[in-house]
Amino acid sequence: MLRQLRPQSALFKQSPSRLLATCMRAYSIEATSASTIKLQDIDPSKLSITKTKTPKELVPPNELVFGRTFTDHMLSLEWTAADGWLPARITPYQNLSLDPASCVFHYAFECFEGMKAYKDKDGRVRLFRPTKNMERMNKSSARIALPTFDGAAMIQLIAKFAAMEERFIPDTRGYSLYLRPTMIGTQRTLGVGPPGSALLYVIASPVGPYYPTGFKAVSLEATDYAVRAWPGGVGDKKLGANYAPCILPQLEAAKRGFHQNLWLFGDEEYVTEVGTMNMFVAIKNKETGQNELITAPLDGTILEGVTRDSVLSLAREKLAPEGWIISERKYTMPELFEASNDGRLLEAFGAGTAAVVSPVRNISWKGNLVECGLRPDQEAGEIAQKMKDWIESRQYGDEEHEWSYVVPK
Amino acid sequence: MLRQLRPQSALFKQSPSRLLATCMRAYSIEATSASTIKLQDIDPSKLSITKTKTPKELVPPNELVFGRTFTDHMLSLEWTAADGWLPARITPYQNLSLDPASCVFHYAFECFEGMKAYKDKDGRVRLFRPTKNMERMNKSSARIALPTFDGAAMIQLIAKFAAMEERFIPDTRGYSLYLRPTMIGTQRTLGVGPPGSALLYVIASPVGPYYPTGFKAVSLEATDYAVRAWPGGVGDKKLGANYAPCILPQLEAAKRGFHQNLWLFGDEEYVTEVGTMNMFVAIKNKETGQNELITAPLDGTILEGVTRDSVLSLAREKLAPEGWIISERKYTMPELFEASNDGRLLEAFGAGTAAVVSPVRNISWKGNLVECGLRPDQEAGEIAQKMKDWIESRQYGDEEHEWSYVVPK
Repeated sequence: MLRQLRPQSALFKQSPSRLLATCMRAYSIEATSASTIKLQDIDPSKLSITKTKTPKELVPPNELVFGRTFTDHMLSLEWTAADGWLPARITPYQNLSLDPASCVFHYAFECFEGMKAYKDKDGRVRLFRPTKNMERMNKSSARIALPTFDGAAMIQLIAKFAAMEERFIPDTRGYSLYLRPTMIGTQRTLGVGPPGSALLYVIASPVGPYYPTGFKAVSLEATDYAVRAWPGGVGDKKLGANYAPCILPQLEAAKRGFHQNLWLFGDEEYVTEVGTMNMFVAIKNKETGQNELITAPLDGTILEGVTRDSVLSLAREKLAPEGWIISERKYTMPELFEASNDGRLLEAFGAGTAAVVSPVRNISWKGNLVECGLRPDQEAGEIAQKMKDWIESRQYGDEEHEWSYVVPK
Repeated sequence: MLRQLRPQSALFKQSPSRLLATCMRAYSIEATSASTIKLQDIDPSKLSITKTKTPKELVPPNELVFGRTFTDHMLSLEWTAADGWLPARITPYQNLSLDPASCVFHYAFECFEGMKAYKDKDGRVRLFRPTKNMERMNKSSARIALPTFDGAAMIQLIAKFAAMEERFIPDTRGYSLYLRPTMIGTQRTLGVGPPGSALLYVIASPVGPYYPTGFKAVSLEATDYAVRAWPGGVGDKKLGANYAPCILPQLEAAKRGFHQNLWLFGDEEYVTEVGTMNMFVAIKNKETGQNELITAPLDGTILEGVTRDSVLSLAREKLAPEGWIISERKYTMPELFEASNDGRLLEAFGAGTAAVVSPVRNISWKGNLVECGLRPDQEAGEIAQKMKDWIESRQYGDEEHEWSYVVPK
C-alpha cells in the first residue's frame, strides 16, 4: 500500500509515450543513483562459498530431462531497500525458507532469465551472450519495482558458479548446463506496493536437447481465443506473470495433438510468438521472388529473445549477402496461408534459449493445416538447420566470437 | 514441457468464443470428474490441528497496518496430481520451505482471495459471502492449470481457522480479520507445463481501515501509458500475475502526489478499475436528469469483485426503487469530464474487500483535474457513505442477511 500523499496542484503535462519514457528513466536513474550513492551494488569480491558435503551422482546425459535435475550448489544474493545488495553466497542447493506472506506468492514479484554454459572441445566452460541476459533481467526487474544490479558483476558471479559446477556439464554436442537466474520479492506484507526486500538466485540444471526426440519439426495450433500480450502490457519482459496464463492454451493444443500453440494478436491475426519462443518465417516475395526472413518487431508484445537477436544478426551477416531480405515487421496468418498455398512459404521455426531452433511443420488455423515448406521426410528447413549450426558453433566455441564468454578457470 | 503428440488429421472447427467456452468447460469437467472419481477432494473431517506453544501478543487495534501482522496459525492443504487434496492442517504460522525450482517462483503459478472475518455485537465471528470467494478462486486456479476444489468444504475449514483465531479479531467497527487464501504451484521443474503439485494455504491478518487516515477521499491519476488488462487476457482473474505489473504506474502516480492510479483502456479511454479496486461513478443523465450508478461490465478485463457485486445488489435493492438507473456498462473519461464540467458527476468511488468503499475526490487526466462531486470539506458522497453503511451492516451482522456466514463456535 502506498502512503498517502497530497495531490500536487501543478499537473503533469506530457504525451503518453514521453510520459512512459520519463517514468521508466526516472525509475532507473533513481535505482542507479541509489545504488551508487547510498546502496551497495553487487561486489563479486565479497562472494562466500560453502561447498556441499554430499555431492550428487551425475545423471547419464541421455536420461536428462529439461530442468528436472540440478547441480550441487546455488548462487544467491539478498537485497534490501535499506542496504542494497548484500554479499553473494554459493551454498549447497537447498530449499528457500519464506514467510507465507512474502509478496512473491501473492503478487508475482518475480522475473527470470534462461542462459546456458557449454563445454568447448578443450574442456573450457563458455557462456553465450550473458550481457544480453543481464540487460534484459534489469529491464524485467525494473518494470515490476524489483531492484536492478550491475550486470557485469553478476556475470562474474555466474561464471564462478558455472566453473564450480563444471563436472555437471556434459561434453556432448547439444548438451549444456542450463542456468536460471531468478529474482523474487520477499517482503512479508500483503499491502500491494514495491518490495522492500528481494532475493536473486541462480540454479543450474544439466540439459540435453529441449525436445526429447531431438531436432524434429513441430505442429502448431494457432490460438485466437486467448491473447498472450498487448500494447502497454508486459509481454516484452521475462516476468513469471507471462507464463502461467499460457498453460491452458498449450494444454488445449496438446489435447488436439499439437506440440505448441501459436499466439496471434488482433483482428488482423498478427503472428507474434510460438509457445515460449520467438517465431521466424522464410517467405519468397510474391512480386519480386526475393527471399525474406521475417520475425515480429519488438513493439512491446514480443519478448526480446537473445536467440531471436542471434538469428537476426547471423541472418544479416550471412543471408543478406546472398540476397535475403531480413525483416523485423508485422506479418499475419492470412499472409502465411496465402504464401503456403502459393508454395512460397519456405520454412518456419521457433527460436529460444531452451530449444535454440525448433522447426515448424505446419500450423492449424481456422480449420486449415497451413504447411510450412517441409517435405514429409524432412525435419528441418535449410535456414533452421544453418541457424542451429551457426549458433552452436559460437556457443560451443568452434568459432571464436565475441558472443562467447570463456569462463576463467 | 508438454510431451510430444502427433497432430490429429481431423481439425477442430469452432468459433473462437465457443472454442474458449468448450476449452474451459472441458478443463473444469476433467478437473471435477478427476476429483470425484479418482482424486480426493477436500475433506474437512480430516483436519489436523497443531496449536502454537508461543501465542503472539496482540497488536493494539490502532497500531494495525494492513497485512503486516499475522495470527498464531495458518491453514494449509497440499495437492498432488496423483492423489488430489491431502488432509488439511492447521499449524503454527511458519515459513514455507520450497525448492528454488518450484514453479511458483518462475512462472507465477499463484492465485489468491481476499476475504474478512468480523466480530458481531454478540461476539460471534462472521464471514462475508465466502461462497463468492471460493467460486472466484476456482475460476482463477483453473485458468492457470492449478487444481480446483470443493468450495463449501473449504469454507468449513476457513471457518474453523477463523474461530481458532477469534482473539485476533478486534470488536471495533471498521476492524476485522483479513483472510488470505492463496494457492501456489510447487512442482520442482523448470519445464513450462501444468503443475503436478500445489499448496493451498490461508493466513490471517487483523486489520483496521485500509486507508490509515480513515474514510478520506482519494485523488487519482488516470494511467494511459500502461494497460492493466486486455480482452482474451487474464485481468478478470485474481492471479498474482495481475498485480506486480501495476506497481510502477502506482509509484508514478504517488510521485506526482496521487493516492492511486485509474486504469483506462483503448483509444476511447474507457474507465476500467482504480488501483486494485473496481470503480463506480454516479452521474445525472444529460437528457433525462435521471441518476445513474455505473460500473464497467464484466467483459474479461474487469475483476469480478465481491464488493462490486454487493454494491450492485444493494443499489438494485435500495436505489433503483428511488429512481436510480443501475448500469453495468462501458463509460469513458471524456464522459466523466463532460459530466464533471456540467456539474452532473455526483460522485465516484472504488470498491474492494480491503477498503470496502473508497470515495474519489478527483481524477488527473490530460492536464485536467476532473472533480468528482465532493465539496472541499466533504470526504465521501452520499452513495459511498450509504454503501459503506449498508455493506458493513451485513458484514457485522447488524442486519441478518444471507450474505453473512456465522462461524460455528
